[in-house]
Amino acid sequence: MKLYDDERIDYLLHDESIKIIQSPTIFSYSLDAVLLAHFAYMPINKGNILDLCTGNGAVPLLLSQRTYGNIVGLEIQERLAEMAKRSIELNELSEKISIVQGDLTKRQAALQQSFYDVVTCNPPYFSTTHKRQHNLNEHLTIARHEVCCTLEQVVQACKLYVKPGGKTAIVHRPERIVDLLTLFRTYAIEPKRMRLVYPKRGKEANIVLLEGIRDGKVGLKMLPPLYIYEENGKYTEEARNIIYGE
Amino acid sequence: MKLYDDERIDYLLHDESIKIIQSPTIFSYSLDAVLLAHFAYMPINKGNILDLCTGNGAVPLLLSQRTYGNIVGLEIQERLAEMAKRSIELNELSEKISIVQGDLTKRQAALQQSFYDVVTCNPPYFSTTHKRQHNLNEHLTIARHEVCCTLEQVVQACKLYVKPGGKTAIVHRPERIVDLLTLFRTYAIEPKRMRLVYPKRGKEANIVLLEGIRDGKVGLKMLPPLYIYEENGKYTEEARNIIYGE
Repeated sequence: MKLYDDERIDYLLHDESIKIIQSPTIFSYSLDAVLLAHFAYMPINKGNILDLCTGNGAVPLLLSQRTYGNIVGLEIQERLAEMAKRSIELNELSEKISIVQGDLTKRQAALQQSFYDVVTCNPPYFSTTHKRQHNLNEHLTIARHEVCCTLEQVVQACKLYVKPGGKTAIVHRPERIVDLLTLFRTYAIEPKRMRLVYPKRGKEANIVLLEGIRDGKVGLKMLPPLYIYEENGKYTEEARNIIYGE
Repeated sequence: MKLYDDERIDYLLHDESIKIIQSPTIFSYSLDAVLLAHFAYMPINKGNILDLCTGNGAVPLLLSQRTYGNIVGLEIQERLAEMAKRSIELNELSEKISIVQGDLTKRQAALQQSFYDVVTCNPPYFSTTHKRQHNLNEHLTIARHEVCCTLEQVVQACKLYVKPGGKTAIVHRPERIVDLLTLFRTYAIEPKRMRLVYPKRGKEANIVLLEGIRDGKVGLKMLPPLYIYEENGKYTEEARNIIYGE
């Protein structure tokens, strides 16, 4: 497999079953992607899954271990979409996962509307308007800041592609929970399951996982919290299970 | 102190400093009231606090231990308002706490608008529309079901009485989190702090505590979860501290 610039191949799971191409200057997947891929409902035997803002394809690669369905990843940045495609080849998963390069705020002819059983998204988090706050690296800026799409556009795209009764799962920061819930409801994705992720016991949550059902009935369940680190700085047993796929 | 029907005097806190008149058939305070009174921000030295849906006055009685400010409780049911008044006398707190009997959906001449530093509310939880689901006892029905006021009317009343920059704290069920957050924002009370209460580790949350600031800036903090029981069925240390005021 050809690697460019400072790219390297990492293992996504502890059993070394899945490899991923990353680069410290272009893009590396984060804990959020791993948590999202673990949290989202997955149909086991068949189904169509769409991952928006797929980056270097970490979420589709992880989801491929949980379903026999077809997975599509949409990524706006050519450089990242291309990295994701090479990772899929590297893992010989081309029959199961495909990558579409395109902008989620525009209709994508390659993606069928109201069609997907599950739509997942790990969107850019920062709604900064000041250019100087943006990451100096353009690739990382687009991946992390709401430059190319706002949270509303993300939720709108989820609504566009998920089928009625289908599920949408998003990972975000707790500061945006009110926006997230309001937008889900605005776009007819009723919030059904929420899980808060805490760095340690006794700290405030720093990640939120939310799943909704398109045209679903009202009724949100708050799952048990997930703690990432023990007091001694080691992963908790649950975090280890999720992160290493043990 | 005169007691009617099946009324009895209970202690609100472990040190027996605060007593409360209750009745199994008319009204007894719940864990929610205790959690709300512990969760809400309180100005220590002075200030004006309003408790809506005050019932037999548990929240004002508990709050009186956390502030030197003035506390008013609003209760629609005469029978309960009267119980609350007797409890206040019983504790010799008449200079600090007063009870207004009235409907929160109607303007109350006794309550000044946009005036209170803090508004608290432990509203009826059940939005049942079927009469047969209502509690057979009318007092309990009004206290527990949205018969006399909807959640929207509750939030509207909070907005009416809290001053700009003042805080509103509510306790409710997690199923209504989306409604609660949406309504807070609709009525210009920006959600700022949320705490989820779990009966035990590993279970779903069954109580939510939410505080917002009128005209506040966007940014919700998710506090560490509160667990009520240990695996062995005993209160956790934190729950014991809150419930017994230890």
